[in-house]
Amino acid sequence: MFEPSSYRDRRQALRIALPGALILLPGHDEAPMDFRANVYPFRQDSCFRYFFGLDRPGLVGLIDAETGEDWLFGDDPGIDATIWLGETERLAAAAERVAVRHTAPRAHLADRLARAIAAGRAILHPPSYRAETRQMLDGLLAGQAAGDPDGRLAGAIVALREIKHPDEIAEMERGLAVTRDMHHAAMVLTRPGAREQEIVGQVEGLVRSAGLRFAYQTIFSGRGEILHNLRYDRTLAAGELVVHDAGAWSAGGYATDITRTIPVTGRFDPVQAQLYDAVLRAQTLAIALCRPGVRFLDIHLAAARVLVEALCDLGLFRGDPDRIVASGAYALGFQCGVGHQIGLDVHDMEALGEDAVGYDGATRRSGLFGLRSLRLAKPLRLGMTVTIEPGLYFIPQLIAMWRAERRHRDMIDYDRFEAFAGFGGIRIEDDVLVTPDGSRVLGPPIAKTREEMAGVMAG
Amino acid sequence: MFEPSSYRDRRQALRIALPGALILLPGHDEAPMDFRANVYPFRQDSCFRYFFGLDRPGLVGLIDAETGEDWLFGDDPGIDATIWLGETERLAAAAERVAVRHTAPRAHLADRLARAIAAGRAILHPPSYRAETRQMLDGLLAGQAAGDPDGRLAGAIVALREIKHPDEIAEMERGLAVTRDMHHAAMVLTRPGAREQEIVGQVEGLVRSAGLRFAYQTIFSGRGEILHNLRYDRTLAAGELVVHDAGAWSAGGYATDITRTIPVTGRFDPVQAQLYDAVLRAQTLAIALCRPGVRFLDIHLAAARVLVEALCDLGLFRGDPDRIVASGAYALGFQCGVGHQIGLDVHDMEALGEDAVGYDGATRRSGLFGLRSLRLAKPLRLGMTVTIEPGLYFIPQLIAMWRAERRHRDMIDYDRFEAFAGFGGIRIEDDVLVTPDGSRVLGPPIAKTREEMAGVMAG
Repeated sequence: MFEPSSYRDRRQALRIALPGALILLPGHDEAPMDFRANVYPFRQDSCFRYFFGLDRPGLVGLIDAETGEDWLFGDDPGIDATIWLGETERLAAAAERVAVRHTAPRAHLADRLARAIAAGRAILHPPSYRAETRQMLDGLLAGQAAGDPDGRLAGAIVALREIKHPDEIAEMERGLAVTRDMHHAAMVLTRPGAREQEIVGQVEGLVRSAGLRFAYQTIFSGRGEILHNLRYDRTLAAGELVVHDAGAWSAGGYATDITRTIPVTGRFDPVQAQLYDAVLRAQTLAIALCRPGVRFLDIHLAAARVLVEALCDLGLFRGDPDRIVASGAYALGFQCGVGHQIGLDVHDMEALGEDAVGYDGATRRSGLFGLRSLRLAKPLRLGMTVTIEPGLYFIPQLIAMWRAERRHRDMIDYDRFEAFAGFGGIRIEDDVLVTPDGSRVLGPPIAKTREEMAGVMAG
Repeated sequence: MFEPSSYRDRRQALRIALPGALILLPGHDEAPMDFRANVYPFRQDSCFRYFFGLDRPGLVGLIDAETGEDWLFGDDPGIDATIWLGETERLAAAAERVAVRHTAPRAHLADRLARAIAAGRAILHPPSYRAETRQMLDGLLAGQAAGDPDGRLAGAIVALREIKHPDEIAEMERGLAVTRDMHHAAMVLTRPGAREQEIVGQVEGLVRSAGLRFAYQTIFSGRGEILHNLRYDRTLAAGELVVHDAGAWSAGGYATDITRTIPVTGRFDPVQAQLYDAVLRAQTLAIALCRPGVRFLDIHLAAARVLVEALCDLGLFRGDPDRIVASGAYALGFQCGVGHQIGLDVHDMEALGEDAVGYDGATRRSGLFGLRSLRLAKPLRLGMTVTIEPGLYFIPQLIAMWRAERRHRDMIDYDRFEAFAGFGGIRIEDDVLVTPDGSRVLGPPIAKTREEMAGVMAG
């Protein structure tokens, strides 16, 4: 939680951006797992949390740019809630902590919206990625003009949320202190014969012991070529590389997103070292290129070029590196984007639409395999926080498919690529703040060079 | 996973119970957390899993009691899924593992159902507790007779699922071996000055290291009078009792549900010991009373009577214990039910409706506070698995409310009850199988008497 005034200021800024608008921001209800009463750990909607701060289910916020009023609709807990879940702050008291003066029972919302609709006002609300929210909105707004048809609500929210306040940065860095501990613990535990799930369990236990949860499901796999591998069923073998992609969700609800690639024995073999250092060079360059006004697309392509050069040195690609990048051939080794915005969400604001967050009128999404997965392409702004996460991935099924389709045959030596089936993957990822002069890697240092990791693993 | 034939046999049993029916069983899709791509750990719908076995998103099962056919609708993963999530078994191969011969793309389902509807067939499906499923069904079945209007589908499913096969019992006992380790670890870690969240983290880490998740969110609290307290933000103090209610979800998807109440110092004071032993006597009696044909309601009332006697001894209740139970006054100390069915779900089959699972024509739900929370009241059957979890809870807000309303003033000494504000709660819970002659506590022994717990805590 930040100061009450910070939430008021955010709502005020949204009002200024959308004069006259009536903005409906539904919070989340509980998410049922296998029946209604057995729910997943509660996670608040990020837009609601950004503007209304409160981290409990069953609330709806309303920002009125005509009257200047803020409303919170929700119900005070009854005795049953107290018996089962403990004392919960009354809504009016909670609202005070986020500088909201008007509260009303949840049942009053329908009437309030009906009056606004009758008065001819359009109701803006973000797209809903949870069916519960869609159903609620369908009930409240049936047949009425509502939503965000021209995207101006999403645009206004993105313009605010993508610039992080120093308090938000401090919160992310508190989360990163725990994430650092997670990654160093995983390095210490990694050894031949260890089971992936054993290490995941210990690392997750550490985060839970800090009173936190995860920003996303942990990746910890000796099959790191699978970009989001969520299986931990293998036993680690000497010679493998483990991709460990994991981040705590800070107490204040901010995501962190860090990847390290750990050699199971503590040492890289010569080819692993060559490729690891290439990914690290690509990451270092990409971080160095971050500054206000630079297109993230160009940073992606610069990182890709470093990776291509390394693969040319090993004979996997041949020809002009610029052409290998421009043609999209590079994506046989680097299939995803070099990063994305991060904040309350690990892919920050993605609920508002990937293009609304990462693209603008001047920067359109590419249709090319690889580049089409780039979540952020538009120019960076001062105060943005982004991940920088280049990687190399040798995916046997993809290599076989491209070979069969004879894609980019002049630039790709498929025999050599196929020799890397079983190599796995390498990813190195940090969270980075765009500063006036360039960028700053957030959080305490996390071992990243081969030497630093060997030091941590040696204990 | 059980043998393919076990799933075929289950579907066949459902066909026999519902001659001519066309039964639609939607599996779960992923559950978005803060945006569509950032999902909670996948949890399959339990009815789908019981009849179709497969533990992956995006599937729908169809059981046709007219033709005798079983169908699985779903899509084979494409190259993008392979890149991001790894190789996934093709649907036809997966279907073979659960003895389903007919598979089709997900898009064929609408046509298949439309033809059935055109042929005048009603489509039975269970109620949906996830909005995603409701929306999908609304789209597929709009305006058509469907659902389970007379409850015969729920009745047939409950009649099958509530009798556990020896393979299911073995699976629950594998889960309970991990749950035993969790509870013993928590006992060892509990000490004055420990933070609740530290212990929760270590216990959860242990479960994750075993490759498992939780059947429900852990309760570990020195404020055990809050029945489902999900906060772990306190530091444990000497003299407190900690209620630890936690259970692993077995690898095969079966819930376990165990509670122990741990004295922070390892020793109970005399009043704590007196009440602890009363709860243990109530639990021992309730377990002993379980056998086929005995109404669970009567077991609940017998356990309540033991608790009432102990509170009479301490002067909190006065008068005839039978009257204190019959009037509902007992619920000031014991607000919930003595147990519930357990299986794939921690409250097994509750998605089908609490009354469909726990009540029958002869046993109707009471409206009395306390008794109305009893999830299972009907007679036990051979092969059922239930929790037995009596408890005592001193809830200051509830005591104050009843006192203000002058409820049961002749039987309750409110001054003495109020003296127990701050005592917290005691709950002791095991998972029990109904056997031909009585019952059997499932899983390996978990320290439960004061002496056994002191032994574990002493290391």
